[in-house]
Amino acid sequence: MDKIIEKILTFSDPYIALDERVVIKKNEIIVDGNHFPYTKPAIIAVGKASYKMAKFFIDKLKDVKGLVILPKGSYISLPKVEVIESTHPDISELSFKAGTEVIKFLKNEDYDLLIFLLSGGASALMEYSNVPYEILRDINEKLVKSGLSVNEINIVRKHLSLIKGGKLTEFSKAPILTLIVSDVPGGDLSAVGSGPTLPDSSTVDDAKLILNKVGLGEYSKYLIETKKEVHNSFNFLILDINIVLRKLRDIVQNPIILSSEIRGDAYSFGQNLAGIVNTSFSNLGLKPPYTLLAGGEPDVKIEGKAGKGGRNGEVCLGFLKWVKRNSNHRFKLYAIATDGIDGNSEYAGCIVDENTIVDNIEYYIYSHSSYEALEKVGRVIKTGYTFTNVNNVYVLEVT
Amino acid sequence: MDKIIEKILTFSDPYIALDERVVIKKNEIIVDGNHFPYTKPAIIAVGKASYKMAKFFIDKLKDVKGLVILPKGSYISLPKVEVIESTHPDISELSFKAGTEVIKFLKNEDYDLLIFLLSGGASALMEYSNVPYEILRDINEKLVKSGLSVNEINIVRKHLSLIKGGKLTEFSKAPILTLIVSDVPGGDLSAVGSGPTLPDSSTVDDAKLILNKVGLGEYSKYLIETKKEVHNSFNFLILDINIVLRKLRDIVQNPIILSSEIRGDAYSFGQNLAGIVNTSFSNLGLKPPYTLLAGGEPDVKIEGKAGKGGRNGEVCLGFLKWVKRNSNHRFKLYAIATDGIDGNSEYAGCIVDENTIVDNIEYYIYSHSSYEALEKVGRVIKTGYTFTNVNNVYVLEVT
Repeated sequence: MDKIIEKILTFSDPYIALDERVVIKKNEIIVDGNHFPYTKPAIIAVGKASYKMAKFFIDKLKDVKGLVILPKGSYISLPKVEVIESTHPDISELSFKAGTEVIKFLKNEDYDLLIFLLSGGASALMEYSNVPYEILRDINEKLVKSGLSVNEINIVRKHLSLIKGGKLTEFSKAPILTLIVSDVPGGDLSAVGSGPTLPDSSTVDDAKLILNKVGLGEYSKYLIETKKEVHNSFNFLILDINIVLRKLRDIVQNPIILSSEIRGDAYSFGQNLAGIVNTSFSNLGLKPPYTLLAGGEPDVKIEGKAGKGGRNGEVCLGFLKWVKRNSNHRFKLYAIATDGIDGNSEYAGCIVDENTIVDNIEYYIYSHSSYEALEKVGRVIKTGYTFTNVNNVYVLEVT
Repeated sequence: MDKIIEKILTFSDPYIALDERVVIKKNEIIVDGNHFPYTKPAIIAVGKASYKMAKFFIDKLKDVKGLVILPKGSYISLPKVEVIESTHPDISELSFKAGTEVIKFLKNEDYDLLIFLLSGGASALMEYSNVPYEILRDINEKLVKSGLSVNEINIVRKHLSLIKGGKLTEFSKAPILTLIVSDVPGGDLSAVGSGPTLPDSSTVDDAKLILNKVGLGEYSKYLIETKKEVHNSFNFLILDINIVLRKLRDIVQNPIILSSEIRGDAYSFGQNLAGIVNTSFSNLGLKPPYTLLAGGEPDVKIEGKAGKGGRNGEVCLGFLKWVKRNSNHRFKLYAIATDGIDGNSEYAGCIVDENTIVDNIEYYIYSHSSYEALEKVGRVIKTGYTFTNVNNVYVLEVT
């Protein structure tokens, strides 16, 4: 496997990240110098990284019990804990079932420290609410179609749930140590999985405004307030894209971190990466050799049919179509989904350089079938599902 | 007027650019050390910058005659030359009339040096072709709607014309000194106004491939070859976005030129400028204080109705919606169209900073009415038509 890809996967591995930050002793756990005593520890892990996060504690703690909630199709079993499969990104009856199991566990089990392992996807994987499932599902569908930002959708979701926006803490008998693998660009921890154990600054009024703005005011009656303060709940960011980029910075040549919050149209981002390279080679822009680093979650707007593709495939095609070829211009672009799955393909992303030529590239661009092109020229990267999610990483070497 | 805006307009002024590069003596013109003798000079100016380019020579040359082709509605008169109004970006009968006037002038007038002043927009403003006007208009409409890149559309246009792709040189009795103000990101001079006096590397076969690709093969019968070599024709780039950015670099604090080829979705570009600022303030990215410089032509895809807006308005709204506010974060974004007109507004662009707050920003984003919002908060810039076009300039001060 390519060295840079290997490093990206290592730096994005939650097991390794926990190993670097969490010290487990016989009767206490230490995180960043904070001591958490235990005799009967319990873990609840929910999100795309829950398997590796749970495995860390299962490996290190002699006696531990708990629940691990994973996306459907993970086909994972783990000793000492119960594994439940649920759905994401959509809320389903499995989400309600998972939420009910968690509440039952917190109420009935005997534990003196709850280790809550939170990662992206938790918001849909686990739900517990007074709002009937069918109604909550309709609200979610309408929210996603309304064009609201992710942040606004999250504010409404938090105020429709009994376990989001800090409210999960009300069900725990013991102190809660929350360790977070974040997929949210910009580091807002309370947005990861709708922050079950974190205080929430948004209010019912904010949620009402948002619902009214998109003509969904009728659902305001279901809104309940989130917790502005949480007690006995200690939250630590273990891993996010910033941490990954910081580590990458130390192993590449002349690093320039541009942004850890790449958003907007994926194809446009690829075009603009090409513009940066072209400007460098018209000795005006950044001076080669350099390695531009970025991370985030650009998106692809699909109207009508789409072939096999994904955001990182479109970044690479946008780049290849607009980058200027010149015998002494060397460049290499890595575009990788840290969770191992880009779009509707089996690939994590692609690596392209000055020798990558895609014939009839417009066809693959307009039909959103980027990986059909990249497969043909052997530039795809297959990692399989990686049980983590800290967004997508872009590395652009210009020499 | 704001100091940075003033500088951008000065650096984009073709009259000033010519004054810096062109020496006019009694019987010769010197450009970059190349001598062009004359006794009876003639000028033909075509494009959005033709007024100021022509004015420079009219002011400096005692006896000069010529034609100046301007966009309709310029309402300009100039001594010593004939002014013709035509249309752009669409080809019309006025374009054919202007082309015919140019050919008549070149055939009938007495001159020993032709000074050809070329700028963006010339491709539509002036046309001379064996293809009947109605057919050429249909082909153009279909090309623009086909989703082909600007570059591919240009290749077909060049091979349907008798004066594009170097063929204008065949009509001149005298050496041609071509001075170019380029609106084409990436510096391909032969793409400016479809290169009437420059050799063209693309071929009839290329044009055929492109037409076939989008189901317009029936028009291949009209294709004629362009000139691979031109004689007695000397081309100089006088002004483009790279030159403007280079000059800006010398007058701002800690300049970083990112790209002179900004393309793709304008709103996404604004989002990603915000991501760069946010990453800087999470002490990971570029170290403040710095001034990021960029130029190019991002675009706006409008589906359905649109309010008063433009690409630079959408860049600013994308930036404002995603940039993080924090008491000690200072930032200022300038987004300016050097031709003075952004989108369907009367504005050139906008300046926004940490104090710019737009209520209900989503409404203005989705209705593509960016300037209705920016007018309300007094952040618009009005320069009027500037008689130049070297794309859009973006200056992002982060302190």
